[in-house]
This record gives sequence, C-alpha cells and structure tokens, in this order.
Amino acid sequence: MHEPIAFLGTLDADEEGAFLSALAGALPEASIRPFASLSAAERAEVEIAIVANPDPAEVALLPRLAWIHSLWAGVERLVRDLGARGIPIVRLVDPELARTMAEAVLAWTYYLQRDMPAYRRQQEVGLWQPLPYRPPAETTVGLLGLGALGTAAAHRLSEAGFKVAAWSRSPKPLPASLTGAEAFTGAEGLPRLLALSDIVVCLLPLTAETQGLLGAPHFAAMKPGAALMNFGRGPIVVTDDLIAALDGGHLSHAVLDVFDVEPLPPASPLWRHAGVTILPHVTGPTNPRSAATIVAHNIRTYWGTGRIPTAVDVKRGY
Amino acid sequence: MHEPIAFLGTLDADEEGAFLSALAGALPEASIRPFASLSAAERAEVEIAIVANPDPAEVALLPRLAWIHSLWAGVERLVRDLGARGIPIVRLVDPELARTMAEAVLAWTYYLQRDMPAYRRQQEVGLWQPLPYRPPAETTVGLLGLGALGTAAAHRLSEAGFKVAAWSRSPKPLPASLTGAEAFTGAEGLPRLLALSDIVVCLLPLTAETQGLLGAPHFAAMKPGAALMNFGRGPIVVTDDLIAALDGGHLSHAVLDVFDVEPLPPASPLWRHAGVTILPHVTGPTNPRSAATIVAHNIRTYWGTGRIPTAVDVKRGY
Repeated sequence: MHEPIAFLGTLDADEEGAFLSALAGALPEASIRPFASLSAAERAEVEIAIVANPDPAEVALLPRLAWIHSLWAGVERLVRDLGARGIPIVRLVDPELARTMAEAVLAWTYYLQRDMPAYRRQQEVGLWQPLPYRPPAETTVGLLGLGALGTAAAHRLSEAGFKVAAWSRSPKPLPASLTGAEAFTGAEGLPRLLALSDIVVCLLPLTAETQGLLGAPHFAAMKPGAALMNFGRGPIVVTDDLIAALDGGHLSHAVLDVFDVEPLPPASPLWRHAGVTILPHVTGPTNPRSAATIVAHNIRTYWGTGRIPTAVDVKRGY
Repeated sequence: MHEPIAFLGTLDADEEGAFLSALAGALPEASIRPFASLSAAERAEVEIAIVANPDPAEVALLPRLAWIHSLWAGVERLVRDLGARGIPIVRLVDPELARTMAEAVLAWTYYLQRDMPAYRRQQEVGLWQPLPYRPPAETTVGLLGLGALGTAAAHRLSEAGFKVAAWSRSPKPLPASLTGAEAFTGAEGLPRLLALSDIVVCLLPLTAETQGLLGAPHFAAMKPGAALMNFGRGPIVVTDDLIAALDGGHLSHAVLDVFDVEPLPPASPLWRHAGVTILPHVTGPTNPRSAATIVAHNIRTYWGTGRIPTAVDVKRGY
C-alpha cells in the first residue's frame, strides 16, 4: 500500500466530490484523502498532493511532499504561492481540455463572425437589418499562444475554413498539418499579427512577461473594427485600455472569460458595457474524468520509476 | 448571339448590381438584361428568365418564356405565383449555399450548447454563475429536412462531435459518411425524432404539407428544455404555439431566421420575447459569384442540348 495522497482544494462540495470520485475510479490502488481528513501522522507521510486552488498554509503542513499535481492547466497562482519552495509543480495537460477550449474558441469565433452581438442589439430596438456576411475564408483569427490549447484551436479554426495566424513568445514551428497558417514570434511579431487579425484570441498563460501585455499600444496595432477574446488570464489585458479602445470605436467587441478579480466584482464597468460579453470563467472547464485518467497515469509512472512528470518552469511561470 | 435573358427581381440596387455583374462575368456570351430595359420586341424573344422575387405581372409579359431560373433555393412564392402556368422553375442548388447554411446551423447550435443566451441574461443582471458544460457527444441535434442543406448540416454537426438525428418526409437513406446518425421518416417518425433531440433544426421547404407542421402537438413531443431553430420558412412554425411552449417552460429557446411576414412586423411579440433570438433572414444568403457560376452552367447546358435542368415539382412544392 502506498502512503496516502493528499487532496487540497477550495472547491464547492459537488465539484470536490466529482473530482474525488473520478480519481478513486482512475487510481483505485491509492488512498486519496481530503487534507482535512488526514491525521498529523498521515500528513507527515504524504509525498504527492493533488491540488485545485489549495491553501498554501495547508501545503506547508506536508513535510515530505515530493511533488504537486495541479488539476488546472493554469498554475500562475501555485507558482506565485509555492514556487519559491522548490517543490515540483505538475500542471494538467489534458487533450480533453484542449478539445473543449478549441471548441470554445470556434464557438465564440462564430459568435463574432456571424454578428450575434449586433443582431442582439438590433432585436432590442426592433430593427430588421441584414448585415453583410463575411465568410471564414475572408476572416483572419489571430491566436496568442501556441501550446496545447492554441494548437488545438488553430486546427479547429482552420478546419472550419478560417484564416489562422498564431503568435508565440519564443519561436515555435507550426505543426505540418496547419497548412496555410502564419506564425509570428517575439516582441516584434506581435504587432504584425495584431495588424492582420479580424479576431484576436488570447490563450496565453499569466507570467511576468504576459501581465499587462495587451494594453493601449497593442490595441492601437489591431485592425479597426477587430474583436478580442480573452480566454487566457485576466491580468494579461489592461481593462481600462480595453474599455477605451471599445469606447473609441477602434475595437468592435470583446468576449472575456477571465478577469483581474474573479468573480468579476459587481462594480466593474465591464458588466454593463454593450461591447463586452462576460463569461464566468467557463470556456475551459477541467473534466474530472479525463483529468483523473491523466493524473493516475502520472502518479503510477512516479511509483513505478521514481520519475516526477515534467514540471512547470517556475521562472518562466508555466 | 443568343436571344436576351431577362433578369427580374425586387432587390435593392446594390444587390441587383452584385448579381448582374457576377452573371455577366460567369456568362459573358449572353446578354442578361433587367426586365425594365427590354423593349417589347426584345421581351417577345426571351426564352430564359433569371429571377429573384420577381413581379408575376412582369413574367406574364414574356410570351416565349421556356423556363425560369431562381437565384434562391426556396421557391414557394414562385410556385404559388407561377406554378399554374406550367413554365418549368429551376431552383438554385448551390454547394456554397449548403456550406453557408451548414455553418449557420453549427454556429447557432454552439450558441445554444454553450448557453450564450443564458450568459447574456446573467450579464444583464450582473450574475456570475457558471452553468454545467454539456459536451457535443451528449447533445443530440435533430434536423428536419435531409436535402442538400440538411445533409451538409448533418456532416458539419457530426464532425463537430454532436449526435445527429435527421427526419425527412419520404424515406431517404443517410449518406454512408454519416456514421452514427439516426434517420426518421414520415408522420410517425417525426415525434420520435423530436423526443430525443436537445436542439431541433428546421430546414424544410414550405409546402402544403409543411405549413403549420410545427405546432402545439409537436412542441409537446419535444424534450423538456429543448430548443428550436427555424431556418426553413416562417409558416412551418405556428408562432402562437411556439410562444406558448416557451412561456410554459417546456421549450428553452428559439432561434428564428424566417417568419410568416418578413420583415417581421414591429408589433410581433417575438421581438420582445426573452426566449427568442430574431435574425433578419440571414442564415443562408445566396452568394452572387457561386450562384452565377451554377446559373451559367445550367444555361450553357440548355443552349448546347436543349435540355432544361431538373425543375421544381410544382405539386410537391420544391
């Protein structure tokens, strides 16, 4: 029998139950226990923690902790709270998450390409006014971020006939299957991608380099009438600059799933902005079942070989 | 030189210009002339009319007319106005229209599957509330109509991972490429399809048999909480029954692109219904360029062989 695995999270009861039951099903040989249920003696044995928004003070009470498996793909909070301790952090890289997120990118791209916000506004005032149809072949979607999520989104958009451009911080070759997509890289590549995109989709992780990346200068570099989707992390976008770009008419619309503070505070002007669609952080939900399968595989590999799965580069932030 | 071809339509000037210039490009050897520009002698020579919402009184002034080519896929008005005269009516069967319409079906399916109307309502009241994600593999889309448009839509939905069911009036085999889709047929097949569909999409033509087809009894046969999309023709749906099904909570939402009277009159309660999304007949726009290529091909075939392309069955209505 292996030493217990600690589960640390601040989830609602339903969600925690769904994850614990999926994990028990995927890894029946383990004893995966909520942190609160572990005695001091048991805590002293724990080598592996599975976490979802954990309280760092609880993590500090696991003296033999060898590594941490996050149930989320985004780990900027873990890196901030725990990175200095030198405990390897493994983030979730789940093909099902990539599928769900790529689907979200396509769905909300259609939302903009098919003028759904404009037709909504027309309905509100009883206006019957067909708008010109812009086919995908004449619509360029610029993706910021070309990791697992960005690559999956690029494929979905490309299969749907959209022109795809993609930007990554460091040079990354586009997969050969993405024929026709254009790749941009580095600080001087970003304004070039922004200038040719009708819809810009942010899928970047939050790091010291991406914080505040999308502000007034980059909005000015975007095409007049272009739209923005932020499905990465809130602080990558400078909210006041975005509102100014929308109010000034340079940008037509923003679909935001992530915010500086979540839940988005009632006083935020974003709630009532006609050019903003607010989503409560739902575009890339972790699927408990597929996540549990991946976590189980990583833990079994560790038990079998002593090898910790590829961990986050704490300095880089993802 | 061939005798002139008459162009008859009630389009706005921009649209008429786009069609005439696309037709001139695709069929440069012909003289395609707006009806008003033809002299009485020229009218007496016309064998072919290309039409878009023509005035029947003008069509009657073409004594040698051999056949009519519609620029629309839906020809119920032509059949009603001109069917009795026995002049063959050829409707547009355009793969580009099928592509555009299939894309519209997928786009608005995502609108419903991704809970866009519910998130919109939540934003209006400042409510941050993630809703459960329902993956395409657990979402059945029921298509009414399995012609060129329905088949193209079934493929797009199926490729996107949705479960697809399709209904046609008369038995039609599903294409072999549509593995996993279920086919239903006839009067007793319709309630069976309705009972298992989370989203019902109407792509039917308007005929004596489809007029008023979707009313209270069929809405009652739908799954509780299901949604309806009508991209076919307005009079297929009984509007008062639809409003009752939405108000009673049995149906969750309707996306309507077509109406009994278009433009939808300002007094219609549909405009202000929270459970209804109104589109001004835009889901399947005819593309002037691709339509002109098809019309040119049909006219050249007629000139070369004397064969009129497959015409509408006036009794059946499409």
